[in-house]
Parts: sequence; structure tokens; C-alpha cells
Amino acid sequence: MESSWVPDIDPASDFSLANIPFGIISTPDDPAPHAAIAIGSYALDLKVLSTAPDLLSQLSPNIPGLASAFSQPTLNTFASLGRPIHRQVRSALQNLLSTTTTHPSLLRDNPPLRARALLPQSTIRTHLPMAIGDYTDFYAGYHHAFAVGAMFRGPAHALQPNYLHLPVGYHGRASSIVVSGTPIHRPTGQILLQPPQAGEQQPQPVTGPSRKLDIELELGCFLGRGNEMGRGIGVDEAEEYIFGYVLLNDWSARDVQTWEYVPLGPFNGKNFASTVSPWVVLADALEPFRTRGVQVEGRPEVLGYLREGRAEGVFDIALEVDLMTAEGDTTTIGRTSSKNLIWSFPQMLAHHTLGGCPMRAGDLLGSGTISGPGGVNERGSLLEMTENGKKDVLLAGMDARTFLKDGDTVTLRGFCGEEGARVGFGECRGRIYSALQ
Amino acid sequence: MESSWVPDIDPASDFSLANIPFGIISTPDDPAPHAAIAIGSYALDLKVLSTAPDLLSQLSPNIPGLASAFSQPTLNTFASLGRPIHRQVRSALQNLLSTTTTHPSLLRDNPPLRARALLPQSTIRTHLPMAIGDYTDFYAGYHHAFAVGAMFRGPAHALQPNYLHLPVGYHGRASSIVVSGTPIHRPTGQILLQPPQAGEQQPQPVTGPSRKLDIELELGCFLGRGNEMGRGIGVDEAEEYIFGYVLLNDWSARDVQTWEYVPLGPFNGKNFASTVSPWVVLADALEPFRTRGVQVEGRPEVLGYLREGRAEGVFDIALEVDLMTAEGDTTTIGRTSSKNLIWSFPQMLAHHTLGGCPMRAGDLLGSGTISGPGGVNERGSLLEMTENGKKDVLLAGMDARTFLKDGDTVTLRGFCGEEGARVGFGECRGRIYSALQ
Repeated sequence: MESSWVPDIDPASDFSLANIPFGIISTPDDPAPHAAIAIGSYALDLKVLSTAPDLLSQLSPNIPGLASAFSQPTLNTFASLGRPIHRQVRSALQNLLSTTTTHPSLLRDNPPLRARALLPQSTIRTHLPMAIGDYTDFYAGYHHAFAVGAMFRGPAHALQPNYLHLPVGYHGRASSIVVSGTPIHRPTGQILLQPPQAGEQQPQPVTGPSRKLDIELELGCFLGRGNEMGRGIGVDEAEEYIFGYVLLNDWSARDVQTWEYVPLGPFNGKNFASTVSPWVVLADALEPFRTRGVQVEGRPEVLGYLREGRAEGVFDIALEVDLMTAEGDTTTIGRTSSKNLIWSFPQMLAHHTLGGCPMRAGDLLGSGTISGPGGVNERGSLLEMTENGKKDVLLAGMDARTFLKDGDTVTLRGFCGEEGARVGFGECRGRIYSALQ
Repeated sequence: MESSWVPDIDPASDFSLANIPFGIISTPDDPAPHAAIAIGSYALDLKVLSTAPDLLSQLSPNIPGLASAFSQPTLNTFASLGRPIHRQVRSALQNLLSTTTTHPSLLRDNPPLRARALLPQSTIRTHLPMAIGDYTDFYAGYHHAFAVGAMFRGPAHALQPNYLHLPVGYHGRASSIVVSGTPIHRPTGQILLQPPQAGEQQPQPVTGPSRKLDIELELGCFLGRGNEMGRGIGVDEAEEYIFGYVLLNDWSARDVQTWEYVPLGPFNGKNFASTVSPWVVLADALEPFRTRGVQVEGRPEVLGYLREGRAEGVFDIALEVDLMTAEGDTTTIGRTSSKNLIWSFPQMLAHHTLGGCPMRAGDLLGSGTISGPGGVNERGSLLEMTENGKKDVLLAGMDARTFLKDGDTVTLRGFCGEEGARVGFGECRGRIYSALQ
């Protein structure tokens, strides 16, 4: 991989020249949110770049509307230009930022433009990258589904009968998606403190702050294109509908969820907040990291609409969960990989639209919690790590947790590739504050 | 109630002077969707009215932005002006259209403006009235929940333990909401034709058009105002967040739903389409029709955040379901009332936001299927009328149904009040077409 002339890129940076993820920023000079990419410890302001006519025409020959797309407060317009355009623009930006750029005068050797366009990330603010029409959360993390099912029903009945046949999912709450760094207030909820006792006439729920506030380590997928209502998306054409990927922490109040979820699924246990990382890694940037998803012995063949032409349906992205206490001690409590999915995003999309459900550019699909097959340090939720609060997770600073305490900060990280050419997501971070009500 | 000078208002019209519901229309002269109200068999074009400066200043003294709100392609801007403004504008429009109007010269005695603004509904097209950020469907129809629960678990366990303690609900799919008249294609889905037999190793699902396509008769509630993330909406302030009401047919594929819904709730069985009536009946118009919801003997007292200051939390709206066959024979297969809810919309809203979930103007809440306590002709779904396909619903024309056939048209109707002063919803209609895939 070529290197970039952008100064001081750490070899361990998620934002190497091989990545070029897109996001929405505001800057001291321009507080209106607009598009940028991340490169090393800098953001390259695409709205500023768009004001340089030579540069834009170099970057985007024959792409009408690109300058306008880069001035929007979300990436939806850019996303809906389609994957061939994303590919062309990413490639042109890689050329522009490469040490071997064919157009050094446009940016590298243009100090005034560099000063305006190449901004230290510490000086800018990131915003939610997409206007999300609908958010759907799947349950495709096989080892998570198995572990949680085994916890409540025993290993013989861990998976529901439908699990190996269709990507189970539910509709989430689009309004509750926030960008990394947004404070998370512990939700208040209706909770059953004790399961109903034998002979007890009535359960006695109470109202109070959740006592079982948890994380869910997920991969999120943003769509760049929609389908006509009534017409499904074929599994092998689904890639063309995908814009890119983010990390997703689907904060969960387990005690609220346990009491509310029968028979219609999770509701207030999930809809108070979900955090996404700010930089959308384009689908093309992850192509080199494809691999096969979870293989289950004796699994029945899936129905035709879910059968993919390509075996490598998922990505091998290293994922980590850090927990920092209010005292500032940080522990990596979980490490796994996004290859631990049993359904690919194209399969999720083909299933989601089988009945004709309309998708729109900006829609977000979550993978479901991702856990590895191994021990508690490979798990993507505290529910699993602590066996629903029965065991402690030990932390640095002589501390321990079953579920999250006020003042805790959880940071998800994810990356693939060699040092110097990493494709990563940056941070998906949220700090827990006490309940507001 | 006063009468209107608008010609030929049928005493049975849903759109009496007592109503004044708001919608979005396009017209032969102005194909860009914009705001209107319904009066008798006419639509009064509010964008045209806004071009008459005297009239607008009469209608809206001190309401900045009203003309602009009426030119928008959705009612979201108008809705977010708040209930006091809705009240003021509705009252001014009632005055304008009354036989005893204090301003006859503005419209009644202004033939050129009348010709441009008062349009037969047969000449205009209605559109989805709101841009819906999120759609939530509740399960507050007590007799429906009881009947469906009894069907699958027996009457002793009909209601889940949480049912009397919290308004059970789930997140629906906002992109799938369509306006009355939009064709509904039978969804294709993954279906288990036979429940797994004893000794069978694996269930054998198939892909195919749903064989159990059903309706759900619901009342829909549009919000006009949002809350700050993390801050709940108190049950007694919730009315101020409500813009108005529509009829809602939450089309359901029962066979898809049965197989998919464990453990995360309904998904493809619901997300292919839901139909709303085009005219939003303002919350104020329904105030005279308040009544108490379902009273259940021995019901435990609800928790404080759900306790309403007012006993009359729901409305007594007469509801009807018509089924017309492809041959044109129409049968009213169900009649009930919206008073058959055990939770009010303020209670649903207080519960939805208890954990801080953010609401936005334009969000849609569905009541859940509404059925009466009586026989099969009081039911809001074919699932109940036919006991999940075991019994026929008899139709005019010597026909019968268990679930819907291609070519069937289902029309929901709802109204309250005396003839001549009815407050009704018009039609919520959809025709079933064969699966597209």
C-alpha cells in the first residue's frame, strides 16, 4: 500500500490511505455540518475542497451534484449516488493524498488550501453521518444468540426453531441513534425486581432507573439506495445497496427488556439510545477482508432467496470493547471478530425485503451482538460476560462490574489490515450519566 | 352546531363543520403536494387560501409562517406549531365556512376565490399527510389481546403477565406507511406450512406468497411535538404532544408472523405495508367524544407514571370494516368502537418515553387492533373472526373468506357525533393485488 503525505500518520491509525471513511463534521470556521473524510489524525474537509474548482473537477469528472452533496448536513445525498461513484471518489481522494499523487499542485503543494481543508480531528466536531429513516436490528451473532438462549432455556434449546432458517430481526427506533460521544442517560423503566413467586397472584412491577444497563457490540450497515415497495432485493444484488459500515453500541436495559418483551419484542429496553461511530467505512474499503461466516455442523440448507453466490459473506474485523471507570482506569473487557455472524448483510437485506418492505438511502441495519465462540473475554455484552449478573467482570483499579455504573465510559473499536494500511472505525464511545427522571 | 354554506353537505358526511380535518393534496392546477382541509364532499385548498392576503391575516393573526406551512408537502410544520395554533386555525376556518360567518366577503361571497380554493374531492389526489420519523404499534385493544391470547394459550393464560401493567408495543416500519388507496401487494414470505411434527428433526419452511393475509383495524395518532432525549413526557401533559388521529389498517401476514416472531417480535409479517386514512382529525375535534376505556375487574392499580388525572382517556368512535370482493359485493364484516382500548394514547406516550426515548413531530402511534367484547362481527381482524382460519366469514354474493383473497378491497371507516355534525375519518382503503415476486 502506498503511504500518504499527510503528516504524522501513526502506523496504528484506523484511518490510513487504504481506508478513506466519510463523515459529517462542523469546524470553527464553518459550524454548519458538512462532509469530510478522515486521514490519520486529520479530517479533510470536503466542502472546503469543493470550493477549489480545479480540484473538484479532477476529483469528480462527470459527477454532477458532488459539491452540493458535500455541503449537506448528512451523507444521504452522497450515499445515494451509488457504489460506482463512491469507488471513483475514494480512489481520487487516495490519489490526492498519496505520496505519489499525480496532482501534487492541487492540495499537497498548495499550503493555503491545505491549511483550510486539512484540520486536526481534535479541532472539529463529528455529527451523526446519516439521516436514518428506519433502523433494523438483527440477531446474526451466532455465539451471542446461542449463549443467551442457553442461559434462559438450556443448551439443548438455545436456538429457536427459526434461527438457522432466517435472519431474525426487529425494527428499532431511528430517533434514538446518536453519534459517538453523546452522553447516555441511564433509562428509567418499568421493572419486575423479583420473578413472580409460586402462588403469587400478581406480579408487582416498580418504576426506577435500570439496574441492568448493558452494551451490545455490533456492526452497523448504512444503505445508499432503496427499493420500490413490493419488490425485494436479491441476495446477490444487495451489495449495490450498501453504502458503508460503522460500529454500533445498542445500549440495552436488560431488566426493562425482560419484563416488557413478551410477546412483541424489545421496546423501552432498547429505544433510549444506540451509539454509532462517526466515520462511515465505505463498503469497498472492507472488500479485502472478506471471509466465511459461522459454519454450523448439520445446518439445513437455506432457502433459495438467502443462498449467496459468494461464500465469503462477512468481514474479519477485529473488535474490542473497553470499559473506563469514572476513576479513569481502562480495561479491555471483550475482543472478538465480525466474522462471528451466521448471516451476511446481503442475506439480511434480501430477507428484510422479501415481502416488499421498502428500504431508503440512510437506513441502518445492525448485525446483532457479536460474540466469539470462546470464553467470557470474547463476548459482546455484559449479559454474557457476567451470566446475567451472576459473575463479576474484573476491571483495572481493583474494580469489578456486573452491569454498567454511572460514570462508566464504554468504547468500541474495530479494525482490519496491517499496520500502516489499517482500515478501522475509530471510536464508538458513550459515557453513562445518572437517570434524568 | 352551526351549518356550513358549502354546497350539498350530506348529513352523514364525516366532514361536517364540526370536524375540519387536515390533509395533503395535489390538484390539477397544482401538482405539488400541499395542505387542505375536508368539508363535505369538497377539499378547501389552504395553499390557495394563503395567497389571499386579507383572508390569511384574518385566519391567522400573529401566526408567523402559516402560509409557508400550508405550502409544504407534509403537515409536519403545521403540526409542530402546537395545539393552541391548531385550535385557533380550526376555529377561524369554522367561522369562514359557517352560514353565519362574520367575514362573508373573504370566501363565501368571493366566487373567483371559491372556484380556485373549494375543489370537489373527486378532482384532487390525497397524499400521506405526514413525514413519519418513527412508527410504533401498541397492543392496547383489550378484547383483541385477550381473544388472540386465548386462541393460542387458552383463556386462563390469555394475557401475558405484563399486559395490565404497561402498554405493550413494538417499533414498526415507518417506510411502509401508505395513504388510503395505495395498492397492497400480497407479501411473499418464509412460512412453515405445517407445525413441526413429533419426532421431526428440523422444521421445513418454504418461500411463497402469504396464505394468511389479514387486516388490523386500528386508530393512529400523529404527534405534533417531540421531547428532549432522556426526558419523559408526563401522562397529563401528553395531550399537548398530540396533533391528531387517523384510521390505520396494519396489514398482517399471519403465517409469516407465526414463524418469524420468536423471540424479537413481528417483522416481515407487518413491514410490507400499513394504510392510513388521508385526513388527520385534529385532537380538539374529538374532545366531545371522550369516554372511559376498558374496565377490567380486579385490575391492579397502574404505576404512578401511567395514572391519568382524567378518567375519560379514550374516544367513542364507531368503527367499521367493509370487505368488497373483486366482483364488487360489499359486506360490513366488523363493527366496534375505539373505546375498547385499555390504554389511552397519553398513557402510551408516557410509557414510550419513560426511558427517555425521543419523539419527533410526525411520529405515528398505532393503538393496536381494536375489537369489541362481543361476537365475531365485533372483531378488528380476520384472525379473530375466523379463529385463525378455522371458520368462514360469510360475505354478500354467496362468498366467504378465512383470510384475504387477491382482488379484495378492505375499507375502514370511523365516525362520531350526530348526523349533520359528524366528526369522521373518511375511508382507509386498500385493494389486494397478487404478489410481485
